[in-house]
Amino acid sequence: MINIGIIGYGYWGPNLVRNFSEIPGAQVKTVSDFKPDLLAKVQARYPKINVTTDCRHIFTDPNIDAVAIATPVSTHFHLALAALQAGKHVLVEKPMTVTSEQAIRLIEEAEKRNLVLMVDHTFVYTGAVRKMRELVATKAIGDIYYYDSVRVNLGLFQHDVNVIWDLAVHDLSIMNYVLGTQPYGVSATGMSHVPGEPENIAYLTLFFEGNLMAHIHVNWLAPVKVRRTLIGGSQKMIVFDDLEPSEKLKIYDKGITLNGNAESVYQMMIGYRTGDMWSPNLDMTEALRTEGLHFIDCIKAGDRPITDGEAGLRVVRILEAATQSLKKQGQLIELNLAEVAA
Amino acid sequence: MINIGIIGYGYWGPNLVRNFSEIPGAQVKTVSDFKPDLLAKVQARYPKINVTTDCRHIFTDPNIDAVAIATPVSTHFHLALAALQAGKHVLVEKPMTVTSEQAIRLIEEAEKRNLVLMVDHTFVYTGAVRKMRELVATKAIGDIYYYDSVRVNLGLFQHDVNVIWDLAVHDLSIMNYVLGTQPYGVSATGMSHVPGEPENIAYLTLFFEGNLMAHIHVNWLAPVKVRRTLIGGSQKMIVFDDLEPSEKLKIYDKGITLNGNAESVYQMMIGYRTGDMWSPNLDMTEALRTEGLHFIDCIKAGDRPITDGEAGLRVVRILEAATQSLKKQGQLIELNLAEVAA
Amino acid sequence: MINIGIIGYGYWGPNLVRNFSEIPGAQVKTVSDFKPDLLAKVQARYPKINVTTDCRHIFTDPNIDAVAIATPVSTHFHLALAALQAGKHVLVEKPMTVTSEQAIRLIEEAEKRNLVLMVDHTFVYTGAVRKMRELVATKAIGDIYYYDSVRVNLGLFQHDVNVIWDLAVHDLSIMNYVLGTQPYGVSATGMSHVPGEPENIAYLTLFFEGNLMAHIHVNWLAPVKVRRTLIGGSQKMIVFDDLEPSEKLKIYDKGITLNGNAESVYQMMIGYRTGDMWSPNLDMTEALRTEGLHFIDCIKAGDRPITDGEAGLRVVRILEAATQSLKKQGQLIELNLAEVAA
Amino acid sequence: MINIGIIGYGYWGPNLVRNFSEIPGAQVKTVSDFKPDLLAKVQARYPKINVTTDCRHIFTDPNIDAVAIATPVSTHFHLALAALQAGKHVLVEKPMTVTSEQAIRLIEEAEKRNLVLMVDHTFVYTGAVRKMRELVATKAIGDIYYYDSVRVNLGLFQHDVNVIWDLAVHDLSIMNYVLGTQPYGVSATGMSHVPGEPENIAYLTLFFEGNLMAHIHVNWLAPVKVRRTLIGGSQKMIVFDDLEPSEKLKIYDKGITLNGNAESVYQMMIGYRTGDMWSPNLDMTEALRTEGLHFIDCIKAGDRPITDGEAGLRVVRILEAATQSLKKQGQLIELNLAEVAA
Repeated sequence: MINIGIIGYGYWGPNLVRNFSEIPGAQVKTVSDFKPDLLAKVQARYPKINVTTDCRHIFTDPNIDAVAIATPVSTHFHLALAALQAGKHVLVEKPMTVTSEQAIRLIEEAEKRNLVLMVDHTFVYTGAVRKMRELVATKAIGDIYYYDSVRVNLGLFQHDVNVIWDLAVHDLSIMNYVLGTQPYGVSATGMSHVPGEPENIAYLTLFFEGNLMAHIHVNWLAPVKVRRTLIGGSQKMIVFDDLEPSEKLKIYDKGITLNGNAESVYQMMIGYRTGDMWSPNLDMTEALRTEGLHFIDCIKAGDRPITDGEAGLRVVRILEAATQSLKKQGQLIELNLAEVAA
Repeated sequence: MINIGIIGYGYWGPNLVRNFSEIPGAQVKTVSDFKPDLLAKVQARYPKINVTTDCRHIFTDPNIDAVAIATPVSTHFHLALAALQAGKHVLVEKPMTVTSEQAIRLIEEAEKRNLVLMVDHTFVYTGAVRKMRELVATKAIGDIYYYDSVRVNLGLFQHDVNVIWDLAVHDLSIMNYVLGTQPYGVSATGMSHVPGEPENIAYLTLFFEGNLMAHIHVNWLAPVKVRRTLIGGSQKMIVFDDLEPSEKLKIYDKGITLNGNAESVYQMMIGYRTGDMWSPNLDMTEALRTEGLHFIDCIKAGDRPITDGEAGLRVVRILEAATQSLKKQGQLIELNLAEVAA
Repeated sequence: MINIGIIGYGYWGPNLVRNFSEIPGAQVKTVSDFKPDLLAKVQARYPKINVTTDCRHIFTDPNIDAVAIATPVSTHFHLALAALQAGKHVLVEKPMTVTSEQAIRLIEEAEKRNLVLMVDHTFVYTGAVRKMRELVATKAIGDIYYYDSVRVNLGLFQHDVNVIWDLAVHDLSIMNYVLGTQPYGVSATGMSHVPGEPENIAYLTLFFEGNLMAHIHVNWLAPVKVRRTLIGGSQKMIVFDDLEPSEKLKIYDKGITLNGNAESVYQMMIGYRTGDMWSPNLDMTEALRTEGLHFIDCIKAGDRPITDGEAGLRVVRILEAATQSLKKQGQLIELNLAEVAA
Repeated sequence: MINIGIIGYGYWGPNLVRNFSEIPGAQVKTVSDFKPDLLAKVQARYPKINVTTDCRHIFTDPNIDAVAIATPVSTHFHLALAALQAGKHVLVEKPMTVTSEQAIRLIEEAEKRNLVLMVDHTFVYTGAVRKMRELVATKAIGDIYYYDSVRVNLGLFQHDVNVIWDLAVHDLSIMNYVLGTQPYGVSATGMSHVPGEPENIAYLTLFFEGNLMAHIHVNWLAPVKVRRTLIGGSQKMIVFDDLEPSEKLKIYDKGITLNGNAESVYQMMIGYRTGDMWSPNLDMTEALRTEGLHFIDCIKAGDRPITDGEAGLRVVRILEAATQSLKKQGQLIELNLAEVAA
């Protein structure tokens, strides 16, 4: 039985507590939050769970094996480091940290102590994203040409981070997992429409080796909610619409065919191919349950999780570089992700 | 009666001939194309119209008042210049020319000769776009925050121009007309997926003075067809979906409200406002008919058309700069549109 | 403070307990269910609520003022009658009873004892349905021509009642409330596709005085989920799509206009009118909360609820008659609802 | 070469002329219409086609092999009979005739003279309908449970026939072709909302042997346009949405599974199965071209067309019976279609 301590019972914490309470082989021992009224909710709902306003009680409890951290991003580094230094396995919310230096420090600490360090890139554990990964990895889509994602809605404006750190973090974690390859540079643009507040609209272009590119559009000030990703390949193309109650994924047997030789562009004939569309039935298990089971399995087997510290670091590096590019109105910022072990 | 000569009977020419044949006060006198089989179609359909494989017959005909040019973009400049020099009013397809220098030269020639020079930015004459212009101009939307447009589909790949010159030209002409203000710079990214061919996917960010920005996504290699524009304002927000058979325009009474003083960002409270949605009934007259009537009216009254040479030049400048930025992976290119008289 | 006893903690009971626990002026005193494991859930979630496997403890508790019944329909009559005879106000799930005789008996008992008898026609308390009622009642729609509703999905097959009693009951309660007038007859057709089981697909036509008609399509065996109602009026037409996350209600300024005199049908010219569409912002309060507040208000003020026993009886009469017509493959069955006091 | 005469150049006639002009092995020799202005359009567009205001010139022309009739339904019988008696093959618009007696008379005349008699049930020749027929005929859908179709929009009100004869005729011809089996009875309801005019809204239920049923909803007074058919089968279910520009057909691997024995309904367990969805690429050839080629092939080979006189008669019988049932507010009317040779 893996005993878990959970820090933070605000927006996401209740989902962690609920899921870890239902996962075989795990149990939630303690929840900490500095707001007593939130802890009262824990007690009413889960009488057997201990509560505390001081998270150090979790670090010092020798019966706690692992810690899940669901607090504001600015606190991730210190809490995760303290947990690792206390010998606990760690699951930390995304974005992993505020800087890539912090992320590297956590990775080193976990490796030194042989502890599991996992980042809660929840979408990676959905049936839709895992199916896309499979379709890409098995070459069912052919060579990948582009990845294009839109994630816009009205609200919730953040005061401490811009819309890239709040929304694009999802797309970047999905993109990295699905494509299985890393961009070498980013160009970003964006703007703030509230004086003194961070950017609420942003556009990112990611450049990869070869002829692959990605683009992400995020916006807190849109009249309609959109969650839509297009993946274009040489054989097939995918539309992923996460707002569809069913049929979230549609795979189109569409594309172009090239005829003729390359001696002259005018001899290159481009044909258009339109075939069937197919929408696979997806595993609808709650992502956080799948993810929690994976975390427990990794702890037990000493395995490295799919969304490990390096996955978290890669996303933080892109977020940093994108914010930098945004200040320079789209100038390319190089990423050097190759040095991060895959 | 205004007599019109039409050069080019390929994709768009037949629409010009049909509309000018039905507009009161105008008649098509001659159609030229270098393909005899296309001219045979004109004769079968419109026995009274003269046809010729040599467009110079149009320029030298003293009974022809105006010329409409629907040929590949590389020929626009020479044909339009010859028409103006022959004393004819000119309606030229978009993009107006290959370079801004050419556009300036045409504007000067038309001004010198007191002739109407109009660019066929067709969308500007649709009911939907004119309604958006009205909503923006009357401040019904409030201050404009952003303009975001997506125009993607499978095909039709062009060999001589990239996707920006083929598709974004529509969005730029709509954007300039609706916003009524000019961007000062552009950052663009894009890629080609066919060896030796121009870019088939591209993203443009346009920067304006103040906190207004625009973004355009164009793609010849998308599994689904999308034609969707969002306009965010301080009072209301617009969704324009041109593929909707009816209800193309939806105006959302949605937005944010700011409370508190600006001394501290943490004292700034952001509220979310959701009200009714309204979809105005639109004038469904064919855009080319409205445009053709406007061309004839301008010729008769000596007026400057809505989509005059300067409007065409502004779009060409942005297309040039965007292509330049695209080569530099998103680096900002300044536009200097202010010097183009509005 | 109104003390409430709730009988049945299966599918719907938890919603009743949750809402009545949060309504000012009410508190849930006791929950009964014959399954101890369900009662254990109540205790874990609401430690202050008493639980019992014997609902008679609710009837005999002098501190309980009102009883909410969320059990299978076959038990509604006996439980509601016992509650009324014990002097309790009653809120009973829909359909109110298995027969109209039972419904009449309950109405009489409640009237005799001056107790509130309310049927849980939940949809009547949604913002969308109340807005439709307002649009119809204020004649904003003009004269009503038809009411057409589709409620289909895959599952959940019932063993004891056919699809009319399970799904059409919603549409009938909405229809009666929105139209404010009663049908005089019903023609229904339907079929069972599982041997020995009740009908899983059915179509009902309701006839009203004048030229108003209604139609309801219900189906447990459909590949897609549809919840869509059309209301056609002489001035405007409504589309109510309950699966839309927002914009559930769209009001179209569309219709026909009649010109000429009625002497000859060939002199009657029919014109088509298309104007704006408008989607009003709706009150999104949970319907059961609005309904619970109304129940408490009626008890305190001695008022008759909107969905009173007569409303429940009218729906049961239509369900009875529709099932009868269905056996006769569409033959009209008269309803005699006029005798039910409005 | 088959020479064709076409009677009627109103709404549908121009489509017949255009298609038969482009079909190899056929040519349009003469077009007749009693309106000279319509004939002038024929001459302008097709200088080689003869025109006449007197359709008898078509019957008496020994060089004309076949006649296509696109006139109001009340004239179909006399024109088709005259054409057959003149020895011409006949293609007649739907509905075939005003009465089933007339349809039988035409069938007999054609058989006696060994001429092709074909009814223009255009939808039968679309790629979508032929694909549905294939899926049903090959049992890919399993046993068919129901066929449900909605065909509603605003306008075009007819003065001489009710909405069943105008719109349901399409659904009935599709249904008969796709299911390949005939209903034994019909129950219909409907209403007129314009004084003195035929019914503008109607609902038809068709009963078949076994547990198959069909339902058709037609309406000239709907705020939105809907063209949607559901087909439920034991193995799969189809959604056909004809307004979708692509993906008109979606096949859902969904349904129920039955477990347990039939001794007791309470031992029958119903499970729900949800698998992939698949949208086959469809032949997008214009239906009228496919149909015209078939007509010519049948004439040359002496074959019976898919939509022969019997197919037309079966639809007319259902239309007659439905109108009869409608007057009796849903009473079942038997059809006796078995006696019509399949």
